[in-house]
Amino acid sequence: MKPKPPNASKTVMTDLVLPSDTNHINNLFGGELLARMDRAACISAERHSQQIVATASVNHVHFRKPVPLGSVLTVEAKVSRAFTTSMEVFLDVWIENIKSKKREKVNEAIYTFVAVNKDGQPVKIPAIYPETEVEKMRYEGALRRRQLSLILAGKLKPEDASELKAIFD
Amino acid sequence: MKPKPPNASKTVMTDLVLPSDTNHINNLFGGELLARMDRAACISAERHSQQIVATASVNHVHFRKPVPLGSVLTVEAKVSRAFTTSMEVFLDVWIENIKSKKREKVNEAIYTFVAVNKDGQPVKIPAIYPETEVEKMRYEGALRRRQLSLILAGKLKPEDASELKAIFD
Amino acid sequence: MKPKPPNASKTVMTDLVLPSDTNHINNLFGGELLARMDRAACISAERHSQQIVATASVNHVHFRKPVPLGSVLTVEAKVSRAFTTSMEVFLDVWIENIKSKKREKVNEAIYTFVAVNKDGQPVKIPAIYPETEVEKMRYEGALRRRQLSLILAGKLKPEDASELKAIFD
Amino acid sequence: MKPKPPNASKTVMTDLVLPSDTNHINNLFGGELLARMDRAACISAERHSQQIVATASVNHVHFRKPVPLGSVLTVEAKVSRAFTTSMEVFLDVWIENIKSKKREKVNEAIYTFVAVNKDGQPVKIPAIYPETEVEKMRYEGALRRRQLSLILAGKLKPEDASELKAIFD
Amino acid sequence: MKPKPPNASKTVMTDLVLPSDTNHINNLFGGELLARMDRAACISAERHSQQIVATASVNHVHFRKPVPLGSVLTVEAKVSRAFTTSMEVFLDVWIENIKSKKREKVNEAIYTFVAVNKDGQPVKIPAIYPETEVEKMRYEGALRRRQLSLILAGKLKPEDASELKAIFD
Amino acid sequence: MKPKPPNASKTVMTDLVLPSDTNHINNLFGGELLARMDRAACISAERHSQQIVATASVNHVHFRKPVPLGSVLTVEAKVSRAFTTSMEVFLDVWIENIKSKKREKVNEAIYTFVAVNKDGQPVKIPAIYPETEVEKMRYEGALRRRQLSLILAGKLKPEDASELKAIFD
Repeated sequence: MKPKPPNASKTVMTDLVLPSDTNHINNLFGGELLARMDRAACISAERHSQQIVATASVNHVHFRKPVPLGSVLTVEAKVSRAFTTSMEVFLDVWIENIKSKKREKVNEAIYTFVAVNKDGQPVKIPAIYPETEVEKMRYEGALRRRQLSLILAGKLKPEDASELKAIFD
Repeated sequence: MKPKPPNASKTVMTDLVLPSDTNHINNLFGGELLARMDRAACISAERHSQQIVATASVNHVHFRKPVPLGSVLTVEAKVSRAFTTSMEVFLDVWIENIKSKKREKVNEAIYTFVAVNKDGQPVKIPAIYPETEVEKMRYEGALRRRQLSLILAGKLKPEDASELKAIFD
Repeated sequence: MKPKPPNASKTVMTDLVLPSDTNHINNLFGGELLARMDRAACISAERHSQQIVATASVNHVHFRKPVPLGSVLTVEAKVSRAFTTSMEVFLDVWIENIKSKKREKVNEAIYTFVAVNKDGQPVKIPAIYPETEVEKMRYEGALRRRQLSLILAGKLKPEDASELKAIFD
Repeated sequence: MKPKPPNASKTVMTDLVLPSDTNHINNLFGGELLARMDRAACISAERHSQQIVATASVNHVHFRKPVPLGSVLTVEAKVSRAFTTSMEVFLDVWIENIKSKKREKVNEAIYTFVAVNKDGQPVKIPAIYPETEVEKMRYEGALRRRQLSLILAGKLKPEDASELKAIFD
Repeated sequence: MKPKPPNASKTVMTDLVLPSDTNHINNLFGGELLARMDRAACISAERHSQQIVATASVNHVHFRKPVPLGSVLTVEAKVSRAFTTSMEVFLDVWIENIKSKKREKVNEAIYTFVAVNKDGQPVKIPAIYPETEVEKMRYEGALRRRQLSLILAGKLKPEDASELKAIFD
Repeated sequence: MKPKPPNASKTVMTDLVLPSDTNHINNLFGGELLARMDRAACISAERHSQQIVATASVNHVHFRKPVPLGSVLTVEAKVSRAFTTSMEVFLDVWIENIKSKKREKVNEAIYTFVAVNKDGQPVKIPAIYPETEVEKMRYEGALRRRQLSLILAGKLKPEDASELKAIFD
């Protein structure tokens, strides 16, 4: 399988924040944003792998500031690194001010998906080659995050997590 | 106000077709697609006008083929022509085949919005200058569509609709 | 097949406008109204044809005035004209003032449906015979609208659209 | 206040049963039908009283048979009897077979509403005079149902419930 | 089949009241509460019977006070009595004040479910033995409510409803 | 402020998985589960802090196995550790087999909330004292997770993350 750049899986979902998406203090309800990011990340993972995918984990979601009712919200997803059958999708979320045209980052998240066949068995997927500076940084961080995740799940011994250990030396 | 190209209002909304979006024969329910197009077109009109906007009319929506459950659906909206306080938004809708990467056009529509202030009064908006061939064609068609719409509403006499009459000569 | 009057397909959908149906300025969201009209028109087309139907196009939707949160909204649909396998459904939409009992027209629209069998192939449907003055006017307009639609789709030459040409002579 | 017939509050809500309205065995989910009936009954009570209303109780809802996905469902509501500030709304629910045109009763229910002013205080409402046989029967039953409800709430002694006692004598 | 106590079917559903759950005066919409209670009662009936269940009737739902937007709402359901193939589920609904920790009862309801096999035929279910004082009271009341329901449906003669008659003697 | 045990914030949300909650292969859609967990965790954080709360981050969400349509799903949330103004909420998610009564863990997640006043400013909250073995383990892990989170956000130097460093020594 030919490796692909993150851009090949870029997915843009721009939508309004309507009353049915808000919490009781008139901001975008956190659960609704998590659901939108899940759909965008799922499409991004499908575009990269050309396979059916299933959400495996969600990590590093940071809600930087509240998103008010009526906002124009853009979720942008790209696969940041692919392993044998799983891939990490990086999400950036912005709102924009209609009058001033100013964009503001409101959220960032990492979702992991597994590519599966019709019987739910994992299938191999193409690798990623990062192109921009940000893509390279995210690509490299992915290995540390994966080691951390394996340690927390008890599937990797801390002393074998070489990439991760390096940041504490 | 400085005129803008259609591209400045380009809005992309890519999303999944889930069971809650379907009709009883497992295709995207027409009403759900009309609602997604309304949200995308509304954002496009807001980006062009930098004002609050309200849907004024919907026309020329053609459902070319059914959209099956599980599809990745992309709605793309751009302002095609602006009049004094109203603007026409052109929408193109595609689905893509995850395995083959083939894109297929499934719908096309024209929505019209009016820019309003907080009291609901119409406000002036910038003009459009089309750049591509398709944009120019849509820009020119907009005048005929507007004349037709005014005739049907009884606000314009057929003999004064010069652009529209031309196609019957 | 025996022709039927528009009244045989009359469909009434009265419902509330709740917060989950509104936009961020507390009026009925345009997309929600388009979806309600699609459901009502679909039922009307099923009642006329006694067949499964699919939305083919949407035209001439005019939003006359905003519909505030809490309104009682009535969508009324009737088939206005049937062609071989497709039919035009006319929709009138009202809100009513609970205190004063006054009804006010807020929207008007035309949806077109095709009757299909289980394999999605078009099937023949009964003709319409209009009874009231309004029904007759809408029945006659349907032919002009159909010619216009065929011209815009490139399937009819303007010079052959006799009904439509007549209004410019 | 002038008494009104039940017909003055007649409310018809015809709508489709789509996948988002069903349970996991592809029938209309009971809770969705209860919600539709609540909206229709609320409009009926508003039309009779010309006031804001609040749901006070729900009784005698009988689910006669399952409603399959894709059904055309009609909820019809009429005020059956009005007391000083509260009113009983009777609901009949049908599905219709598109091919055969046969209608079938699937549910029947009684909802009670209180008319309130902006501060939530009960306000007086017009009386009902039943016109048809069915309306008369429901009007008379309403008193027995009210007595029963007051007994169950501990607000009426069984020996004072003359209408209700009569059926056991 | 071994009888079970009501506690074995206890079901707790705590959730927020968000804007999409409200009516136009910012209180929980009655229909939404009826739907939540239907889901909780359904789970309770499934836990008792270990079978698929279908809603048969809804009775004695009393809305004591409005539930404001932003509330933490708890629906608690327990089977109160089982008959041959049907069972009565009692529901209590509370809101709680986050600051003061005070709980307040806002609704009470009785739903009846029938246990069915895959073909929709009723199947036998275990009996209930009440343990607490409240459970005993509800267990005993269930027989009177069932007699009343059978009388109203014309399936039982008033003079044979011994339990129910007793309260009028 | 008096410290509280995790149990004081325990929140149980049992609900059905209906078609409107699923993806196109008839399993619970990941985004819907993320939204339910957000609501349950939010209530848990409100119960602990007795304050308004806002979602700050989401981490360590592991989807262990797909949740089929029709499942009875229970989300259980408890505050695992409180810092000055923020708290970590641990979520465990189960499905149960109605026939066999067997429970199965399907998801685990950690959400972080900040307590805020009406102006959105962080406010102090009570501490947590863990009681059970599992609660103690989660309480201790919370510090390492917090250090990790601060490092990733560039607010803490790796060499100062004593708790976290310890696992690599």
